[in-house]
Amino acid sequence: MNYFSSEFKLGILGGGQLGKMLLYETRKFDIHTKVLDPSDEAPSRIACNEFFKGDLMNFDAVYELGKKVDVLTIEIENVNLDALEKLEDEGLKVFPPTRALRIIQNKAKQKLFYVDNNIPTADFQRFAYKSEIEDSVANGGLKFPFIWKATQFGYDGQGVKVVRKLEDLNGLPAGECITEEMINFKNELAVIVARSASGEVKTYPVVEMEFHPEANQVEYVICPARIDAKIAEKAQEIALQLSNKIKHVGLLAVEMFQTQDDRILVNEVAPRPHNSGHYSIEASYTNQFEQHIRAILDLPLGNTASKVAGIMVNLVGAEGHTGNVVYENIERILSMDGVTPHIYGKKQTRPFRKMGHVTIVNNDIKEARRIAEQVKNTIKVISE
Amino acid sequence: MNYFSSEFKLGILGGGQLGKMLLYETRKFDIHTKVLDPSDEAPSRIACNEFFKGDLMNFDAVYELGKKVDVLTIEIENVNLDALEKLEDEGLKVFPPTRALRIIQNKAKQKLFYVDNNIPTADFQRFAYKSEIEDSVANGGLKFPFIWKATQFGYDGQGVKVVRKLEDLNGLPAGECITEEMINFKNELAVIVARSASGEVKTYPVVEMEFHPEANQVEYVICPARIDAKIAEKAQEIALQLSNKIKHVGLLAVEMFQTQDDRILVNEVAPRPHNSGHYSIEASYTNQFEQHIRAILDLPLGNTASKVAGIMVNLVGAEGHTGNVVYENIERILSMDGVTPHIYGKKQTRPFRKMGHVTIVNNDIKEARRIAEQVKNTIKVISE
Repeated sequence: MNYFSSEFKLGILGGGQLGKMLLYETRKFDIHTKVLDPSDEAPSRIACNEFFKGDLMNFDAVYELGKKVDVLTIEIENVNLDALEKLEDEGLKVFPPTRALRIIQNKAKQKLFYVDNNIPTADFQRFAYKSEIEDSVANGGLKFPFIWKATQFGYDGQGVKVVRKLEDLNGLPAGECITEEMINFKNELAVIVARSASGEVKTYPVVEMEFHPEANQVEYVICPARIDAKIAEKAQEIALQLSNKIKHVGLLAVEMFQTQDDRILVNEVAPRPHNSGHYSIEASYTNQFEQHIRAILDLPLGNTASKVAGIMVNLVGAEGHTGNVVYENIERILSMDGVTPHIYGKKQTRPFRKMGHVTIVNNDIKEARRIAEQVKNTIKVISE
Repeated sequence: MNYFSSEFKLGILGGGQLGKMLLYETRKFDIHTKVLDPSDEAPSRIACNEFFKGDLMNFDAVYELGKKVDVLTIEIENVNLDALEKLEDEGLKVFPPTRALRIIQNKAKQKLFYVDNNIPTADFQRFAYKSEIEDSVANGGLKFPFIWKATQFGYDGQGVKVVRKLEDLNGLPAGECITEEMINFKNELAVIVARSASGEVKTYPVVEMEFHPEANQVEYVICPARIDAKIAEKAQEIALQLSNKIKHVGLLAVEMFQTQDDRILVNEVAPRPHNSGHYSIEASYTNQFEQHIRAILDLPLGNTASKVAGIMVNLVGAEGHTGNVVYENIERILSMDGVTPHIYGKKQTRPFRKMGHVTIVNNDIKEARRIAEQVKNTIKVISE
């Protein structure tokens, strides 16, 4: 297949912001793209060649897009897998493959996969209904605190809750879920692994999520992680091991905990470009979006090393602000060295909504960290 | 004016490849864009918010676009200046300003401007008609060889010719032209200067055009130029001096000759993103396209320094090939370290047509130069 010919068509399921950033890279390679998304206002709409409106969980919508393209990929895991499987059976290149998506789409299956393949992960239990959790607590099989997670369709912090007492379960969905041991981690880390259709594999450097000391929210994604080289090596080895077992094609973002006693536990994975790799646009020789394209088109993978240190700050809607968005002080952060804002173009803000991100690059990671804090303290996503 | 609000609209005259690369940056800042271009197949069409088809030299087409936007810029100099002037008179922000464009659009005016402002440039003569050149040669006022340039509407090597004998004038347009002393230069250099609406100014590093030893064609644009620091300083000073005199807003790409006796002569300028700045996408803290946007929106200018050394190779159609384009061996160059192809998406190739460019970045400029040569010798733009 000649990917650089006008006959080649790439399909993308999902037209969100990740898809939009992926599409910038298809432009660089002049690849014709067809995007499926349920929203008329999908961010990808402006950057793709053809846009189709349709539900990503609908068999027919997904199947029909698949019949129009030569390679099909995703920018979100929640898509109709039966349609993907049928397309694969009919010979379409679906990357990541349906088999990998089936494991990842359901968090209970993900956890069982880790156990079956000797991938270290936090202890967990699986429940068909939330009510079974209460029984388990009552008979002593489950102790507070623990993490509750819906097995499917969680996104951006939805579908995850710290449960410290029975009442914390109120209001959570009744369906299938898992509970996980709460890890008192030293660091939260992530490694992105790229794997091409023919099996070439490369890992990006380990990144570190730095948390706000009080709010317990990720404030900065820092590359490279400021950790011991041996820990970094171990994290990369585990990510590679997982990549080889799950046999994804494209990117696999592996989120991990470094425990107080320096074990590495896999938290969860995403088989696509990921928030923890946004820094790569400015910092890496090959950014994660270009790398995903290279991997699914079975082109040689690019250099995953960094040109400079990179730190990413998410731009989320400020508390107390709902309505037409204003990026207060964006001009001021533009005057800081090595600062690039990425505004996602959502017209309405609400508390904690992801509205964009800012990357800070610098030769000196300490200087980057200093500027990142300035950025964080300067720009505010508020309403008019 | 709040540029980051949904009310703000940016107009761009011209929808070519430069415009498309400019539009990627407007996406990052979520700026609403309206593009005017005569071609239904304008590359920018896929990346702008609204596309208008119309002749850039037509008063009404340009004026009407201007009435729909808050700031108007260009990606090509050949636009209707009377319309721009009227828009400016009516209060529109036109960047670069019409006054600067009037000087630049006509090469005779450009040269006179250099002379009037003590900007060193090659000696020249101005002719209302080509036939006057023959008279001048006959009476000894003009000696071979010299450079002939049409004063207007030259592009991509068109409108320029080395004249070594009378017959070389055959077939050239009959209208207004200049002749220039042919400079036996040691190096061809370029400096991009960014100047914001409120007058903040920054220069990019000096780049060097390396020529093919036999074909006398630019093969590589190299940043930083491998020249003496004092020459680089002189080149930047002259570019800055010119920028301050011409009072452009946005970028000014200044092409210069370094003579055998180390004088710097300005060759010509372009008041917009430029081929000599394409390396900046991968190599610079702030690429030239983002910088142009910052400048015309009067945002703080970004860091013009490089993260790594960068070399650009133009991808032009191979001789003997006309028709549906094929990028032979593109997969092979993708396996080389730090190599990024930019394919412009033109479906048809013909000899010497600009079809894309490739950037090579590396910490070590010698290694980048070695890989650039490999790229040049590997990829071929041919027809099916």
